[in-house]
Amino acid sequence: MFGVTILGNNSALPAFDRHPTAQVVTMDEHIFLIDCGEGTQMQMTKYKIRRSKISHIFISHLHGDHYFGLIGLITSMGLLGRIQELNLYAPTPLKELIDLQLKFADTQLPFQLHFHCLENEGVIMKDNKVEVSCFKVSHRIQCWGFCFKQIKPLRKIIPEKAKSFEIPSSFFDRLKWGEDYVNKDGTIIKNDLVTEPLPKGKLYAYSADTMYDESIVEKIRGADVLYHEATYLKDLEERAIKRFHSTAQQAATIAQKAFVKRLLVGHFSSKYETLEGFEQEAREVFSNSDLALEGVTYRI
Amino acid sequence: MFGVTILGNNSALPAFDRHPTAQVVTMDEHIFLIDCGEGTQMQMTKYKIRRSKISHIFISHLHGDHYFGLIGLITSMGLLGRIQELNLYAPTPLKELIDLQLKFADTQLPFQLHFHCLENEGVIMKDNKVEVSCFKVSHRIQCWGFCFKQIKPLRKIIPEKAKSFEIPSSFFDRLKWGEDYVNKDGTIIKNDLVTEPLPKGKLYAYSADTMYDESIVEKIRGADVLYHEATYLKDLEERAIKRFHSTAQQAATIAQKAFVKRLLVGHFSSKYETLEGFEQEAREVFSNSDLALEGVTYRI
Repeated sequence: MFGVTILGNNSALPAFDRHPTAQVVTMDEHIFLIDCGEGTQMQMTKYKIRRSKISHIFISHLHGDHYFGLIGLITSMGLLGRIQELNLYAPTPLKELIDLQLKFADTQLPFQLHFHCLENEGVIMKDNKVEVSCFKVSHRIQCWGFCFKQIKPLRKIIPEKAKSFEIPSSFFDRLKWGEDYVNKDGTIIKNDLVTEPLPKGKLYAYSADTMYDESIVEKIRGADVLYHEATYLKDLEERAIKRFHSTAQQAATIAQKAFVKRLLVGHFSSKYETLEGFEQEAREVFSNSDLALEGVTYRI
Repeated sequence: MFGVTILGNNSALPAFDRHPTAQVVTMDEHIFLIDCGEGTQMQMTKYKIRRSKISHIFISHLHGDHYFGLIGLITSMGLLGRIQELNLYAPTPLKELIDLQLKFADTQLPFQLHFHCLENEGVIMKDNKVEVSCFKVSHRIQCWGFCFKQIKPLRKIIPEKAKSFEIPSSFFDRLKWGEDYVNKDGTIIKNDLVTEPLPKGKLYAYSADTMYDESIVEKIRGADVLYHEATYLKDLEERAIKRFHSTAQQAATIAQKAFVKRLLVGHFSSKYETLEGFEQEAREVFSNSDLALEGVTYRI
């Protein structure tokens, strides 16, 4: 299962029971948190996300609606007796804040908090299941988008064929990654004789808070799902530019140019009590657009 | 109207839809906020407390469940275009945190934030309606309790008597504060000839997070309402001592010794799913005890 659950879809001011930004990306045994606005830990309780399962947290930037809930979440993890390490990827100054908050509270966390400073674009975390990379976006302060790329074997073994060539099962893992087999007498069994191609790993792209900026297109190209902010509707495009945000139409234009498969829009301004306009405006440009709704899990 | 509305009555871990500490004290035109745990601004929306009306905020100490919601509230006030000044009374290090958070977000507040460091016991704020003082309590880190004392005229004018002595209405305010009137020919009209006594101004005492400590008794003596923390029940008294907290029984003992009129207990541990035990235990010692329940306004 590879999916994203929205915990907060509003911009800076909480309103209409919409909360500041937070999302949980689930991929097999991994649970990643992206951004952590105020109240995220309560939203986790509401939507039955287990705090203890989160292994990595990614913070896009230091506007409060993206991180004011982080210190509360970390403190709660400590109070609950967490011992497994936690990895935090965030703009460098956040470390100073967390250290101060723990110091003033005279609190020592019972677990290792590994702080990874976001400084350069590229891969920031990788294991045998997933690769996470970050990219710069255009916002009023330094701000980062994230790509979550599923790592999957390239090939699926056809068991009866592998058997007929007497390939030992100990070699199957290497077959899955496309290797040919060489048997004892030197005969090469070409990989595609005993395997068939698998669909590629999927890609989720989170573009964070950004104004309309075509330079991100190459970073998110072909994503299975793109989350792009849409703080305003197109009639407030000038305000969007002034505040380094996007309109729903602009988000959809980026989705279209990047040939993504599906677009989710979020980070709605508290100016808007209802959200239909965002869906409608995005779909006019890119039909496979949806609202990122709190409590909903979207499959990647 | 002098009252306190509970926005959060739980201790460190939010649980069972109970929230970290925050209370709103309303006195005539004043709306004061005491402590501001994570999610306080959402609780204000839920319970229809207008953020814009808050003029003074008092933070007891720098454990997160008492202040992690403050920066979000302040930021929201700014986003909403607040211009009237805001007074914040808190332990000194909080200023550094707020300054850093605003700096990292590249945010200038559109209103004056006056930071008042809590350093000594005594009166910290006074006008013609209210006097607020702070006192030290016994917690793991520096922690302050607060007393809100209503300032009310001492005497009520009996209009027909004042008229019969030909006292001009311009002198009435001074009569209310107990002054005698001296007429043109030097005759002294004793105050109590033309006025009658008024009930004294009321007193609300908030004892913050504290272990059982009889030294606070003299600070809160005779309060009309005392809020005292009761994190645990008496069977966990040892844990309470270890963590510098109190049991419901201890809170009630303090109430009794201080001759307060009514006790509210709060700051319940997330160990407890239901709260009946707290009420029962407190009432065994001090019968006029109640639970501080979220969303409820208690008249002082």
